Amino acid sequence: MEKVKVAICQMLITEKKSKNLQKAEELIREASGEGAKLIVLPEMFNCPYDNAYFSRFAEEYPGESTQLLSQLAKELGVIIIGGSIPEQEGDRIYNTCFIFGEAGELIGRHRKVHLFDIDVKNGIRFKESDTLTAGEEMTVVETVLGKIGVAICYDMRFPELIRMMALEGAQVVIVPAAFNMTTGPAHWEATIKVRALDNQIYFIAASPARNLEASYHAYGHSMLMNPWGDVVNKADETEQILYGDLDFDYLNRVREQLPLLKHRRSELYRL
Amino acid sequence: MEKVKVAICQMLITEKKSKNLQKAEELIREASGEGAKLIVLPEMFNCPYDNAYFSRFAEEYPGESTQLLSQLAKELGVIIIGGSIPEQEGDRIYNTCFIFGEAGELIGRHRKVHLFDIDVKNGIRFKESDTLTAGEEMTVVETVLGKIGVAICYDMRFPELIRMMALEGAQVVIVPAAFNMTTGPAHWEATIKVRALDNQIYFIAASPARNLEASYHAYGHSMLMNPWGDVVNKADETEQILYGDLDFDYLNRVREQLPLLKHRRSELYRL
Repeated sequence: MEKVKVAICQMLITEKKSKNLQKAEELIREASGEGAKLIVLPEMFNCPYDNAYFSRFAEEYPGESTQLLSQLAKELGVIIIGGSIPEQEGDRIYNTCFIFGEAGELIGRHRKVHLFDIDVKNGIRFKESDTLTAGEEMTVVETVLGKIGVAICYDMRFPELIRMMALEGAQVVIVPAAFNMTTGPAHWEATIKVRALDNQIYFIAASPARNLEASYHAYGHSMLMNPWGDVVNKADETEQILYGDLDFDYLNRVREQLPLLKHRRSELYRL
Repeated sequence: MEKVKVAICQMLITEKKSKNLQKAEELIREASGEGAKLIVLPEMFNCPYDNAYFSRFAEEYPGESTQLLSQLAKELGVIIIGGSIPEQEGDRIYNTCFIFGEAGELIGRHRKVHLFDIDVKNGIRFKESDTLTAGEEMTVVETVLGKIGVAICYDMRFPELIRMMALEGAQVVIVPAAFNMTTGPAHWEATIKVRALDNQIYFIAASPARNLEASYHAYGHSMLMNPWGDVVNKADETEQILYGDLDFDYLNRVREQLPLLKHRRSELYRL
C-alpha cells in the first residue's frame, strides 16, 4: 500500500458552537486540499471541555455536528475521525467520536469508556462522571485504509484497551484527547510513544489548541507516532493542521524485525 | 512506612566468572555500607551476554553464584535481587533471577518468560532461543518491603506482565536488563517511565555497564522511576552504584490523586 497522508486539526475551541463548526469545516477543507485522506478532529471539538457546557452543547445522532462531518466526508472523499462531541441519548450524555467513511456513511462511533475523574494536589481537578456516562465497548472500525482503533483521551491511559485494538488487527489507533497542563507535560508524549511501540502501530493523538480564555487549558502537542516509537510530526500548543504519512510497509518491517506481538505469552496473562 | 534506600549495581561484566562474582560482592558490600536495604544486580551479572557463554557459565541451584548472594544477604541483612545468571536444570538453561531475603533465604526465582529473538536491519541481531528455555510464570515475591515483582529484560516489553504484577499487589517492579545500542536509545527510558506511571509503581531497571570489549554492548542507563513517571535517579553507561529512595507514602498519594488502577474497566478487557 502506498503512503497515506493524515491531517490532525488542532483547533482552537470557543464558547460558540457555530464558530467551532465553522472552524472545523474550514480546517477539514484545507486538509483535504493538501491531500490528506484521513482527517482527525480533537476531543470535544464543538464544545468547551467543561462540565458546565456538555449538556447545553449535546446533540442526538444525527444532529447538526455529525451531519456536517458526514457531508464533508462525502463531498471531499475522505475519512473523518470526528474528534468527539457531547452526545445525547435519552437523558444520558456520552463523550462520543463519530467516524465517517468517504461516502459520508457512519462507519463507527466510540463512546469514551474510561471517564476522567482526577484530583491532583496543586494541579488539575476534573470529574467527567458528574455529567457524562461511560461507553461500554472498544471501537475498531473497518476502513479502506484497514482497521482503525478509536479511543478518547483518558482511554489511552489503559494499555489493555490499546492492546485489544492491536490484537483485533488495528494498525492505526486514533485518540482525540485533551490532556492538560499537569498531565500533558508529565505523561503525554511518553504514553503515546510507548503505546505505539508496544503495539507496533501508528498512534495519532489529536488535541485542541490551548485556549487561555477557557477554564480548561489543553496541552496541545498533537502528535503522530510511528510503530518504532519515533515522532513523525508534532505540534506546539497553537492552532494548526499537523500532517504526516502512514507507511504500512514500514510498519510491516518493524513487526518483522522486532516481533513483539508474536512473542506475547498470552497463555500466561490473566488480566 | 519510612523511605527505603535502593542500590542498583551497574557492574562491568567480564569473561571471567570469578572476577564477576568478586565485583558483585564488592559492590553489594559498598551499597550496604551506604545504607541500601534492597540491592539489585544486572542481567547475566556473572556471564557475558552472549549465546557462546551461557552453557559454559551455567550453574544448578544452589551453586557458586547463588551461594555467594545468599551469604551476603544474610551477613548484611539486605534483600538481594540477583540480576540473572544462566541456570542449568537437567539439559535446559534458563535466564534466571534468584532473590534472597535478609536471612539469606531464597524467597523467589524468576525465569525469563519472553525470550529475546530480534533481527533489526542495520541494528541488533540476537536469538536467545538458540540456547535458552523460557520460564512459565510471573514472579511476585513477598518481602519485608511488601510485594515486589521481578522480570528480566525483554519481559518488560510486554505491558500485560507488568500489569499483572501490579494487580497482584506489587508496588515495586525490578527488571535486570541489558538493552543494547539499538533498542536502548530508542526505547529504554520511555518504556520504564510508562510502565511505572501506567501501574503507579516504582520501577527499577538494572543494566550492566557498557563493555566495549564484549560482543554485546549494553546500553547502561540503569534507572529508578517513580509512580508518577519521574526519574528518581539514572546512570550513564559506566560502572557505578546508583542509589535512590522508595517512598510508599508518595506512591499512595499518586494513586489517590490519579486513580488509574481503580478506573480500569476490567469487565471489558479480553486479552
